[in-house]
Amino acid sequence: MAEHSAAAEETGGPRSDCSAPTRIMLAVNQSSIKGYPNPSISSMNAFHWVVKKIIQPPTRSHFKLLILHVQVPDDDAFDDTDSLFASKEDFQTIKHGDQIRGVHLLQHFVHECNELKIPCRAWVRKGDIREVICKEVARAHPDMLVLGSRGLRTIQKIFVGTVSEYCVKHVDCPVLVVRRKQEDAPEDSIED
Amino acid sequence: MAEHSAAAEETGGPRSDCSAPTRIMLAVNQSSIKGYPNPSISSMNAFHWVVKKIIQPPTRSHFKLLILHVQVPDDDAFDDTDSLFASKEDFQTIKHGDQIRGVHLLQHFVHECNELKIPCRAWVRKGDIREVICKEVARAHPDMLVLGSRGLRTIQKIFVGTVSEYCVKHVDCPVLVVRRKQEDAPEDSIED
Repeated sequence: MAEHSAAAEETGGPRSDCSAPTRIMLAVNQSSIKGYPNPSISSMNAFHWVVKKIIQPPTRSHFKLLILHVQVPDDDAFDDTDSLFASKEDFQTIKHGDQIRGVHLLQHFVHECNELKIPCRAWVRKGDIREVICKEVARAHPDMLVLGSRGLRTIQKIFVGTVSEYCVKHVDCPVLVVRRKQEDAPEDSIED
Repeated sequence: MAEHSAAAEETGGPRSDCSAPTRIMLAVNQSSIKGYPNPSISSMNAFHWVVKKIIQPPTRSHFKLLILHVQVPDDDAFDDTDSLFASKEDFQTIKHGDQIRGVHLLQHFVHECNELKIPCRAWVRKGDIREVICKEVARAHPDMLVLGSRGLRTIQKIFVGTVSEYCVKHVDCPVLVVRRKQEDAPEDSIED
């Protein structure tokens, strides 16, 4: 699964070569309703928007999608409340399980890129979503960061916060925020 | 100057036709140091970024740039403090003068688009920048709104506010925020 393990080659300084592909980093997450390996509505929406509107067929090889999934440690711990922990090895197994779930999520996107012949790389990182995205942008130097957004109303944002607002202010590259379409929103808009 | 007067044809409902060009709206403003007809650093930066990174040469006809300049009434009044007002006609002349200055600003961008053979339309509107941008997005239904940003520090934002933050929350299409490059920033980063 070379597509998933190639984060290391995405490092380097800012690109200035005119002939270099436009490297678009897309941060994706799992569905808050269905869980792994299903992608969130916002992530799928952002991915499809970029593929349809930016990466036009004759120039697909002029682009490269860098697909990042950040796993939040607290969520993972919650997923494993039924597990029995008795040794170091048990935790190792969980870690491996988390990794697998993240990789399965990425498979959706990598598979679609392969079908469309869009060059891509995908990888998983753990930690605080906002901090990890900023760190990965600083490390991989994409030309652009794309984030799906649920388009929450003001009152909801107070409690939920938004990753996109933080990233627009803090990352050192252009940021595209793709809000979820109204017709794709579930009844409870906190869900995704 | 057909390019400047074609705002009317940019109306209509949301586009769903796959073969339709990707319509990118770019909001531009004048330099805060040099004034009209010079574009701001942020506007030029955003324009060049889009042209270089998104609108790849083989697909230039698959894109259309909609270039919007919003003139702020207070700024214009300040520009005309030396004028003598004695009749309705004097004010008509001023209004005409404002319009001309806005059009001259747009010429930079339209000229570059023509050189690069990128289809474009450009027009001027008056009013509050944030409100007008939202209104024009609702009217013209671009696929994407691009905004240059000065990348002010938090303390500066408190006093200056940012158009991009407002638009990311309020417009009904994906928003790309292109921050000014560090090396392009003047000594006083409020200037643009």
